[in-house]
Amino acid sequence: MGKLPTILSRQLIAKTRLFRVEQLDLEFSNGEQRCYERLIGGERGSVLVVPMMDDETVLLIREYSAGSQDYQLGLPKGRMERDEDPLEAANREIREEIGYGARELRLIKTFTIAPAYIRHQTHVILARDLYPDRQPGDEPEPIEVVPWHLSDWDELIGQPDLTEARSIAALYLTRDLLT
Amino acid sequence: MGKLPTILSRQLIAKTRLFRVEQLDLEFSNGEQRCYERLIGGERGSVLVVPMMDDETVLLIREYSAGSQDYQLGLPKGRMERDEDPLEAANREIREEIGYGARELRLIKTFTIAPAYIRHQTHVILARDLYPDRQPGDEPEPIEVVPWHLSDWDELIGQPDLTEARSIAALYLTRDLLT
Repeated sequence: MGKLPTILSRQLIAKTRLFRVEQLDLEFSNGEQRCYERLIGGERGSVLVVPMMDDETVLLIREYSAGSQDYQLGLPKGRMERDEDPLEAANREIREEIGYGARELRLIKTFTIAPAYIRHQTHVILARDLYPDRQPGDEPEPIEVVPWHLSDWDELIGQPDLTEARSIAALYLTRDLLT
Repeated sequence: MGKLPTILSRQLIAKTRLFRVEQLDLEFSNGEQRCYERLIGGERGSVLVVPMMDDETVLLIREYSAGSQDYQLGLPKGRMERDEDPLEAANREIREEIGYGARELRLIKTFTIAPAYIRHQTHVILARDLYPDRQPGDEPEPIEVVPWHLSDWDELIGQPDLTEARSIAALYLTRDLLT
């Protein structure tokens, strides 16, 4: 593994409510210099939750996604709020999005989404031993909850509205853990 | 599946060399209105390539990632260039990054990375029947090529520098296809 490049300078070049873009002037260990841009995706990272109704049934959601401008099938997720740890954030998100809390929460992996140009971490939390506990969220419309039996795996992975790499990777990791 | 929200207005609120941020005013089918931001990640999308040296050996790379500011293990990838289709882009990227071309290229899935707030598509290409063909790329330093035997699966998935959800999901899809 190489020696990390030196950051010669960094500059905030764009800022909106959700996004910040930073410009980095880098010098690699071989003397090559490059100017990179990277997106800073929030200080606190996000959580992606795999809520298991039982060892065979995952609770997916289908909700509007503004980036792709369609309804996407995937796992519940959201940004961590101030003072939350990943397990607390995960338990809040599933209460708000699917109406269940979990007695057992476990961090199984931390993902990046495009580490070449986005600084962002997503903590993947396996949630088990669920119980009904609906909390109000800030969703503009009710979220559709889609229970899926893991034995219908090929059909799940082939769903055209299941495209998010984080959800697909987290489902595979869960299948490896539970079966 | 719900009726798509109506876009009441859209506005470009930030633009850099790599990124554009758009603000959307949306009205959901139940009358709720929301203001969203989304990142536009390039018009042409990107490719992620799974180069198989043989049916058991994938060629990974380890390279500097400015977003996470570390060296990451993962699959070769890059943006599609003008007039390229995904298979052509995939074959160019592996020539530049690992020094091989492929006689067999196949699109196995198209991923999103965070469809809630990023408009971006990544085409996953399985590349087989490789032959040596190194082309110059624009990398600032040589990329380390890391052959990995798929039978060492748990060790692969457990590597601390393998974090990118796209690479992990693509490796699982490939394992399902080939074994």
